[in-house]
Amino acid sequence: MVLVNGKAESRITIADRGLQYGDGLFETIAFRHGKAEFLDAHIQRLLAGCERLSIPFQQLAELSQELNSVYQQLGDTQCIIKIIITRGCGGRGYFADKTSVPTRIISTHDSPSYPQHYGQTGITVRLCQHKLSDNSALAGIKHLNRLDNVIARNEWDDTNIGEGLLFDQSEYLIEGTMTNVFIVKSQQLITPLLNSSGVAGIMRAQIIAIAQQLDLPFKQAMLTQDDLMSADEVFVCNSVNGIWPVRAIADSVKQYATGPITQQLQQALTKVER
Amino acid sequence: MVLVNGKAESRITIADRGLQYGDGLFETIAFRHGKAEFLDAHIQRLLAGCERLSIPFQQLAELSQELNSVYQQLGDTQCIIKIIITRGCGGRGYFADKTSVPTRIISTHDSPSYPQHYGQTGITVRLCQHKLSDNSALAGIKHLNRLDNVIARNEWDDTNIGEGLLFDQSEYLIEGTMTNVFIVKSQQLITPLLNSSGVAGIMRAQIIAIAQQLDLPFKQAMLTQDDLMSADEVFVCNSVNGIWPVRAIADSVKQYATGPITQQLQQALTKVER
Repeated sequence: MVLVNGKAESRITIADRGLQYGDGLFETIAFRHGKAEFLDAHIQRLLAGCERLSIPFQQLAELSQELNSVYQQLGDTQCIIKIIITRGCGGRGYFADKTSVPTRIISTHDSPSYPQHYGQTGITVRLCQHKLSDNSALAGIKHLNRLDNVIARNEWDDTNIGEGLLFDQSEYLIEGTMTNVFIVKSQQLITPLLNSSGVAGIMRAQIIAIAQQLDLPFKQAMLTQDDLMSADEVFVCNSVNGIWPVRAIADSVKQYATGPITQQLQQALTKVER
Repeated sequence: MVLVNGKAESRITIADRGLQYGDGLFETIAFRHGKAEFLDAHIQRLLAGCERLSIPFQQLAELSQELNSVYQQLGDTQCIIKIIITRGCGGRGYFADKTSVPTRIISTHDSPSYPQHYGQTGITVRLCQHKLSDNSALAGIKHLNRLDNVIARNEWDDTNIGEGLLFDQSEYLIEGTMTNVFIVKSQQLITPLLNSSGVAGIMRAQIIAIAQQLDLPFKQAMLTQDDLMSADEVFVCNSVNGIWPVRAIADSVKQYATGPITQQLQQALTKVER
């Protein structure tokens, strides 16, 4: 199912700035049990992204109405709902026409079919060779300029590798290709600062909130490969797949147990309202 | 006029990775006197970009044929021809389907109507606040992840400003929002190294070739704002507009004369086969 500006339509004009320049944002939302999970958080990040990019998105009421019609058609189907907002069409080259109306695209997709054990016994991750671009102006938001993720994700096609971890230009650990990453070291939960690259994930925020509720020692920090390699526990997460423990680093002898703090967070996550 | 994979069609599926991730490349070509200018150089950069991004583009014969049909329809019309190549559709998220066929999009656009004096008495440029993303893996090629250019270009709407100059994360001068930049200092022509950001422009390469033919002292180097401010001559260039001398920096007292080396290059450029 695809809606473009509310109409059942699977195509957009090639003039759309989303195609021309990646001039837009997106959200990928799990739809389960008749509900779009963490919807408010997704919408808030989308709006924050529009504000950061000065995309004058004022069609939230229309978007909400369109999402409601999608939910009704989906019923109990489990799937992924993807929302794309672009700056729309027009302008002269990079210079945007300030009167353009942003484009809304809602599409539904099959839920990813990752092995069940990814969330239980965990995954092997790769350390990607490709480095993330540094730019504080683009960090945190989920914009459409995703070549970094594409290049990194296509470094491997070994199905035994569940995710790739990405470092920035200064070799700091930032995130996975489609996840955020946390480590546990000396009982402390730590996730990379996302000041100059990376996407501030919805599940990442959930886990930070849970850690605070559970009074777990937590911080955001600059993490190196040494920090990763000397961690007691490592996990990756996103809003669709929840928490995947990391059990090994490919091409290294490093192995991790699924530790108590990862399990405690997974357990707490089952009780969170989505 | 728009052709998508050879068909007269102004729309593409929203599933195209060009929209989803900016997973593709483009070229903007001046069409004048029945000829696509610097076509070979544009095509070579496009192919180099495909190779860098591992986009398996093998439809060059089809693209050439489609371009020929566009030329025939254009006749003597002066315009811009834009080519976009995306990785096509398919794959699971960032992971590409290696069997997907890239998408070819050819579109024609009105020639930009910049004032004639831009090329003669020159332009005032702005120093953009937005900084370019650093990433050697993406530097030089003309990929579709152009949020940096969009953000920078939308910092101003004062029509007295002809271009904005962009610096990288380390405050080195790199390029204009839609141009490359050269300075002349102590009789030497210098353009920024594009090792970690920027687009290696077709006109930039032409000017470097002309400088070599004319035996002008030339180098590529890391340039700072101080280098810019203390230059004797500055100009920006692209394949559509040629050379625009820079005569002033906005919000500063800095002014430049249109110097002899800029004029020598402009003169030489009129004789280059396009």
